[in-house]
Amino acid sequence: MAHRVQEQLVLVVELLILLAICPKAIFGKLGCHSRPSDVPPPDGNGYCLSWRLAVEANNMRAWRTVPPQCQRHVESYMTGGQYYQDIDLIIKQVTAYADGITMSGDGMDAWVLDIDDTCISNMLYYKGKRYGCDPFDAAGFKAWATRAECPAIPAVLGLFQKLVDGGFKVILLTGRDQETLGGATASNLLTQGFDGYERLIMRTQAYKGQSAITFKSDIRRQLVEEGYRIWGNIGDQWSDLQGQFVGNRTFKIPNPMYFVP
Amino acid sequence: MAHRVQEQLVLVVELLILLAICPKAIFGKLGCHSRPSDVPPPDGNGYCLSWRLAVEANNMRAWRTVPPQCQRHVESYMTGGQYYQDIDLIIKQVTAYADGITMSGDGMDAWVLDIDDTCISNMLYYKGKRYGCDPFDAAGFKAWATRAECPAIPAVLGLFQKLVDGGFKVILLTGRDQETLGGATASNLLTQGFDGYERLIMRTQAYKGQSAITFKSDIRRQLVEEGYRIWGNIGDQWSDLQGQFVGNRTFKIPNPMYFVP
Repeated sequence: MAHRVQEQLVLVVELLILLAICPKAIFGKLGCHSRPSDVPPPDGNGYCLSWRLAVEANNMRAWRTVPPQCQRHVESYMTGGQYYQDIDLIIKQVTAYADGITMSGDGMDAWVLDIDDTCISNMLYYKGKRYGCDPFDAAGFKAWATRAECPAIPAVLGLFQKLVDGGFKVILLTGRDQETLGGATASNLLTQGFDGYERLIMRTQAYKGQSAITFKSDIRRQLVEEGYRIWGNIGDQWSDLQGQFVGNRTFKIPNPMYFVP
Repeated sequence: MAHRVQEQLVLVVELLILLAICPKAIFGKLGCHSRPSDVPPPDGNGYCLSWRLAVEANNMRAWRTVPPQCQRHVESYMTGGQYYQDIDLIIKQVTAYADGITMSGDGMDAWVLDIDDTCISNMLYYKGKRYGCDPFDAAGFKAWATRAECPAIPAVLGLFQKLVDGGFKVILLTGRDQETLGGATASNLLTQGFDGYERLIMRTQAYKGQSAITFKSDIRRQLVEEGYRIWGNIGDQWSDLQGQFVGNRTFKIPNPMYFVP
């Protein structure tokens, strides 16, 4: 009996030594090795990660709605903290760049900032649109914007104030319609702390129906012709950052909820 | 005697059960988990996700190395499947766009493709450089490229063949030095299936020391002056896709391992 138990003990000790030397040899085969926490899960999440990356790297154009299978993914991204963490890192890059600029002293050193989902957030509105899975609703968005209740995006507000305090002329450039949303937009910006900008430029009748790239390029051309040096240009849409006179450096704020051509 | 041995056996079996349930409880404390000792612990995946997004959206410029705390994240991204999944979705976008092009029939409809980490992969080389945590090693990379063993990136190879078969002139444009790497590069491309391209354009003495943006813009200008219509331009670096004559549409292949100015 003692002999048999001793044999078993030797076997068990050998197994323990094997485990200590090479746990993967055993756990790997059992399928219970610990996958690093940062490996994406092999389920449908991978597609949504790819989709969102393609949007942010400007590989995905003219998309109309978030793919239905990515609603949860986009919701988690927007509300779970990663969206704001992503913005914080971008604003750190902006700040490092802005800190390195030698101001001219002539009052023409400028930055161009987009408004919607750059300065102030429409996330609450898009929550009701399944985070972009529903198609764009012009009347619904107008009603929302009229309420003038978009909260500031904190890191961008901090940057805005730093730029203004530093002597930059901050020009807010938006595709929002001036006639119908001019008052609400100015009011919303002010109550959220966006105070001290040089100009608020909105879409007028002359630019109606034009793409954001065309409209914003034309405005930036006028600014440059007036003598402004556009040091930086920040927007959540690639159409804010492409076209002509885009500025010395552009920064893309994430937005997986909608696409503006 | 038998009783004492049996008690020991029970203890050993209990230890085994503990190991099976929670190996980290033992190996973690013993410091013998599988993470290499020189890799700093993950700081929370969030920062590395933000960092990688900033790189891919061109918000992060002139970065020299992957942040040390993101080594594991980049390794997992590159080797865990997500990198290839991301590329597959991008190539689907490229294909949909290419399918919609009406060919002129004059043989001047062209695409420009970068080579390193666009057509063929240097992932194996960068594995030895801690996935980009080590600074660029010109001699080491030259020795690697001379071996001409970079594997094709499958989805890009498929696209390349589709473009060639479809009658597009595919121009491969690389910052690799023609004098020292010309033969190895041509050979590597051929053995990996990149056959039938219109031209392989490498960096000559005249472009030495110039940034990729300047060099590649100048080459694309010459192509356009020759009459080529650059329908698409694909690269893993923003410096492939910016500057002049960038093409009708650009596509950014992910690369979190290194930055080329």
